[in-house]
Amino acid sequence: MKIRDNLDALIEKHPEIYEAYSRFGKAVHEQGGPLDERTRWLIKVATSAALGYPKAQLTHMTKALEAGCTPEELEHTILLVAPTAGFPRMMEAMERLREHLRSPEEIRP
Amino acid sequence: MKIRDNLDALIEKHPEIYEAYSRFGKAVHEQGGPLDERTRWLIKVATSAALGYPKAQLTHMTKALEAGCTPEELEHTILLVAPTAGFPRMMEAMERLREHLRSPEEIRP
Amino acid sequence: MKIRDNLDALIEKHPEIYEAYSRFGKAVHEQGGPLDERTRWLIKVATSAALGYPKAQLTHMTKALEAGCTPEELEHTILLVAPTAGFPRMMEAMERLREHLRSPEEIRP
Amino acid sequence: MKIRDNLDALIEKHPEIYEAYSRFGKAVHEQGGPLDERTRWLIKVATSAALGYPKAQLTHMTKALEAGCTPEELEHTILLVAPTAGFPRMMEAMERLREHLRSPEEIRP
Amino acid sequence: MKIRDNLDALIEKHPEIYEAYSRFGKAVHEQGGPLDERTRWLIKVATSAALGYPKAQLTHMTKALEAGCTPEELEHTILLVAPTAGFPRMMEAMERLREHLRSPEEIRP
Amino acid sequence: MKIRDNLDALIEKHPEIYEAYSRFGKAVHEQGGPLDERTRWLIKVATSAALGYPKAQLTHMTKALEAGCTPEELEHTILLVAPTAGFPRMMEAMERLREHLRSPEEIRP
Repeated sequence: MKIRDNLDALIEKHPEIYEAYSRFGKAVHEQGGPLDERTRWLIKVATSAALGYPKAQLTHMTKALEAGCTPEELEHTILLVAPTAGFPRMMEAMERLREHLRSPEEIRP
Repeated sequence: MKIRDNLDALIEKHPEIYEAYSRFGKAVHEQGGPLDERTRWLIKVATSAALGYPKAQLTHMTKALEAGCTPEELEHTILLVAPTAGFPRMMEAMERLREHLRSPEEIRP
Repeated sequence: MKIRDNLDALIEKHPEIYEAYSRFGKAVHEQGGPLDERTRWLIKVATSAALGYPKAQLTHMTKALEAGCTPEELEHTILLVAPTAGFPRMMEAMERLREHLRSPEEIRP
Repeated sequence: MKIRDNLDALIEKHPEIYEAYSRFGKAVHEQGGPLDERTRWLIKVATSAALGYPKAQLTHMTKALEAGCTPEELEHTILLVAPTAGFPRMMEAMERLREHLRSPEEIRP
Repeated sequence: MKIRDNLDALIEKHPEIYEAYSRFGKAVHEQGGPLDERTRWLIKVATSAALGYPKAQLTHMTKALEAGCTPEELEHTILLVAPTAGFPRMMEAMERLREHLRSPEEIRP
Repeated sequence: MKIRDNLDALIEKHPEIYEAYSRFGKAVHEQGGPLDERTRWLIKVATSAALGYPKAQLTHMTKALEAGCTPEELEHTILLVAPTAGFPRMMEAMERLREHLRSPEEIRP
């Protein structure tokens, strides 16, 4: 799988960089404030959807589902991005959600 | 206040456009899925923060606070944007949060 | 066809959201001012080209051609984006125009 | 005036770069296709509005008005950007139009 | 090859536009200041990586390698983009570097 | 000074997040590859210039000058961004360079 390949290559070649990045992400996630796990991942889905990053969105959707978010909550999250980010960016994100729900084991990073 | 001025001018000159936009925003917000009011506004704060829209972020933060979100939850939301959007974009959004909390009545749109 | 699939899924699942969005787009298009139909679509082609949204650009190009714009006018529109948006963004949009003109019935959304 | 200052400094220090850039802009503008002068500038207004470049938008609006476009046409152009680029980006551009029309001689680059 | 196809089509149809663009790029490159050839191309790799332009990045990487930059220098350049542009944008650029190094003759524009 | 204020507030309130971010930046900078200190900072200037982050660009320019880069090298770096990112983005970055060189002690973060 492509996301893993690229990440694995980074981890193999630059373990200290990936480690430092992971710690930064973790610090923000766990020590940045009081939001619960589900809300955290929905916010990250909104972020990657708004910015148009397909692979980050896949990772964030997977994590959100693992944290107990429902497909309907993911869909609501993506729809909420539309007025601010514009319709096309939302539609691209929505397509990725639909593909992910159709074949999670194939696409799951 | 600048945000209101610009919005008022639009509403006055193009009421049907603003009306249609509001309905779209409302449809997405209320009929887009099951997320509660607080989470909806946090997601919108994340969106405007990630995209770097100062005035939209002010509106979203005001609405989030009115919906019962705490300043700490807004801060957590903005911090969560950093790994995906990059540090400078998060810092710009954080500065707007801090200024908003310092003088809500002045800046509040 | 992918654009239609994604749009159809939205329309089926969230008819009221798509309806509200369509009204907003229509209000802006028809009541936003005096520009004629052809100019409106060229402006939308410029917008989706400048922002790098492939599917929106396909829709806008199709509508522009239906409104009577020539391929040369679409090309001119896209070229005009280059100095402001940078060369790569223009070239991506130009490639989509070329592919669209080669096989309109296949790609046409 | 700031736009001129910055441009003058570039022209003074790197005349050959500005000259080359101007030729590129001119080639795109005049030899890129059949669009008339007014439409060309509206397309450039749409581009700088969609991308959020305040100074480029000022230049493009000034040129559009000089080419005979009306304020209503500029307004329509900017409104048409909204569904694709999102509401906040359009509103920022609309505010710049309004300020420009209020005090053209002050802001005019 | 796609990059060449698209570029060739532009050159064939609008030689004067491509010529003007090339001169602009050359003026910036050769007369813009004292940086040596290798550094110039690394800066262009950073630019296309930060902005997420796959084809421009391929061109810039090819030129950087031709100018004597090592794969390790390209990798360092792309990694340096991460804190400012965010992790996903860097990872996309890194994947393009890896693919380019694996099969340069296939992908090389 | 605004940059410091905002950064100081983050450091005071979330020392562990800033610490983790700094380590990530340092890992990328020092362990990401063989580029020398001067080239690293020029690449970061190109990145913040291309993405339009004023405060990050100030930090990167300050560090680049401290590392021994000349104003002419910074200017060349920013000019090189223009063909890929578009003229307006480069001009905004150039204005920040000029202001920084005029009054380094005032603006220096």
